[in-house]
Amino acid sequence: MCAAVNSSAVVLLSGGLDSATVLAVARRDGYACHALSFDYGQRHRIELEAAARVAKAGNARDHRVITLGLGDIGGSALTDANIPVPENAATGGIPMTYVPARNTILLAVALGYAEVLGAGDIFIGVNAVDYSGYPDCRPGFIAAFEQLANLATRAGVEGRPVHIRAPLIRLSKAEIIRLGTDLGVDYSLTVSCYQPDPLGRACGVCDSCRFRREGFAGAEIPDPTQYRVR
Amino acid sequence: MCAAVNSSAVVLLSGGLDSATVLAVARRDGYACHALSFDYGQRHRIELEAAARVAKAGNARDHRVITLGLGDIGGSALTDANIPVPENAATGGIPMTYVPARNTILLAVALGYAEVLGAGDIFIGVNAVDYSGYPDCRPGFIAAFEQLANLATRAGVEGRPVHIRAPLIRLSKAEIIRLGTDLGVDYSLTVSCYQPDPLGRACGVCDSCRFRREGFAGAEIPDPTQYRVR
Repeated sequence: MCAAVNSSAVVLLSGGLDSATVLAVARRDGYACHALSFDYGQRHRIELEAAARVAKAGNARDHRVITLGLGDIGGSALTDANIPVPENAATGGIPMTYVPARNTILLAVALGYAEVLGAGDIFIGVNAVDYSGYPDCRPGFIAAFEQLANLATRAGVEGRPVHIRAPLIRLSKAEIIRLGTDLGVDYSLTVSCYQPDPLGRACGVCDSCRFRREGFAGAEIPDPTQYRVR
Repeated sequence: MCAAVNSSAVVLLSGGLDSATVLAVARRDGYACHALSFDYGQRHRIELEAAARVAKAGNARDHRVITLGLGDIGGSALTDANIPVPENAATGGIPMTYVPARNTILLAVALGYAEVLGAGDIFIGVNAVDYSGYPDCRPGFIAAFEQLANLATRAGVEGRPVHIRAPLIRLSKAEIIRLGTDLGVDYSLTVSCYQPDPLGRACGVCDSCRFRREGFAGAEIPDPTQYRVR
């Protein structure tokens, strides 16, 4: 990752563990960070409150939340109340928590925002290790989006290339947690659970909770997550 | 364009002349058409009413409108009330009516919807002739998006490729109007103007009105547009 003193970046911030780490990486690398979150009809709206906390704690320059009516197209356990969140370990294939084309959509809006800001870098916390079942978390997808971005925009046409930065893409969850801890990330501010209770406490049994628990255990770092008693 | 009896397609429908023609082309080619429009904070909301009329007249299977808070990122005369709509012919470069990354964003959401529907085709009315100043209206952009789409989705991963269809991309406005007229499109239902009045009457002087007027003149077909007196 190149150092970039005074360069601006858009950082996609979900309120989860990964994107909190990405914000810390972008700040370490010298970017002025414009955090961007989405209200896309996700069940776990408590994520948006977490995103606001993380943006502030992580010294983002500002934080915007874009409304995006993805609930209207359905198709995922995370946006469609008729599809249950799975509570067992994934058995292969693409999980029901996959939101169709989500990362394509989020990166596309981030690209528009980057163009408005004149920012040349977009950071996203995708991870191909734990989320290998999601097609839009793989390195080939990120490379293809970067190529598209430079055909799609004024900046690309005018010779100011846009870079899509996915600094976690090849790290394990334990490695991500070690990296973020070294950079001072307070993971108690983050929410990973797909179905937190109204107080923000995690279920402990969805895929996302499972990866998070195993990550803290593997990193040998105390897990600050509040789990609800079931 | 291949005939596709009983295949489903997502058709991006703005309420303007081009996308009304695209819907007619998709219907001619045998697709069951799921029309998709966006409420993205555009000034010309009257477009959405036109889109609903066009979807119905064009025998779309259904019509959805997705909320998308692009006004929150600003940067275009079409979504930002602080930027005036230009009223003179473009003088080169990218016009102020360009919405940053708009077609990337619209195609990304259409891709998610296509995945939910199991549709293998997405139709978009981009045009590289009149709108050559918009980077995301060029054939290279469409080809790059199609490539991305097949890396980004469950369908792509599972060997059911997604096709991005841009049947107007190399046609002049007059050719588009002749094509649509042959297919029975009622252009009096459509709105192209960037700043219509509350009754839907066109200004007659913005770039979009100018292209439309010249198109009807070139096609030697009577222009059904209602222009307001200025």
